[in-house]
Amino acid sequence: MQLKQIGKISTPYKKKGQAPKQGRLSEEEGIIEVFPEYVDAMKGLKKPRHIIVLYWGDRADRSITQTIPPWGEELTGVFASRSPNRPNPIAFCACEIVDIQGNLIKVKGLDALDGSPLLDIKIYSYKVDVCEKPEGYEGNR
Amino acid sequence: MQLKQIGKISTPYKKKGQAPKQGRLSEEEGIIEVFPEYVDAMKGLKKPRHIIVLYWGDRADRSITQTIPPWGEELTGVFASRSPNRPNPIAFCACEIVDIQGNLIKVKGLDALDGSPLLDIKIYSYKVDVCEKPEGYEGNR
Repeated sequence: MQLKQIGKISTPYKKKGQAPKQGRLSEEEGIIEVFPEYVDAMKGLKKPRHIIVLYWGDRADRSITQTIPPWGEELTGVFASRSPNRPNPIAFCACEIVDIQGNLIKVKGLDALDGSPLLDIKIYSYKVDVCEKPEGYEGNR
Repeated sequence: MQLKQIGKISTPYKKKGQAPKQGRLSEEEGIIEVFPEYVDAMKGLKKPRHIIVLYWGDRADRSITQTIPPWGEELTGVFASRSPNRPNPIAFCACEIVDIQGNLIKVKGLDALDGSPLLDIKIYSYKVDVCEKPEGYEGNR
């Protein structure tokens, strides 16, 4: 399973630790550059709406399986967290399209480190991607 | 960027076209098997809650850039769709944990084809992954 880099992400976050813990808490803007050979796949994409952006955590540590999350004190498995460090560092972010110019998509709320390789874009579905806390859920995440 | 298969997904959907267009519209259950070497990464995962499951669309066509979506009539870029066919066929599904037994996670609402390779699990955040339609949005997706 070999991934292709289909574009590049530019954000104000140059170093690990600068990116917000979750992008949507921020109003900062980022730019998604789609490489020319994939621009056809953007047809129909327009503001305003949210998109799902998948990108490669190229500075992640793939050997880490447990971590202490910023919102907790206990050692937690990375699958029970949002740590960038995980066996396959595919980062997920739902962010809002602010503008589109050619192969450049300006978005709000993207928590990627600057220069991260773009893997995929999908439309966010306001029907099926919005989940409600199930009855009996006691967490605060 | 080379992915590792970290587990395997079992669902009732054996062939292309059998999977629901979006898993959460279904009450069918699926099983996520996490391979033993990654079970440490499940620590702290428990029901009830939603998780984000990323899996590899091993039967996808990676050469397709445009498609006619089930909800439309116009040729649309795959980045403006949820088509399984795309340059990097990383499928995304938010589904609900029904039960966990050892390395097996039973979930509701997973739209994967049976046998799909598991790539990643993250907790769904009821804070940042829930997006509201922005003002001016006119779609019905």
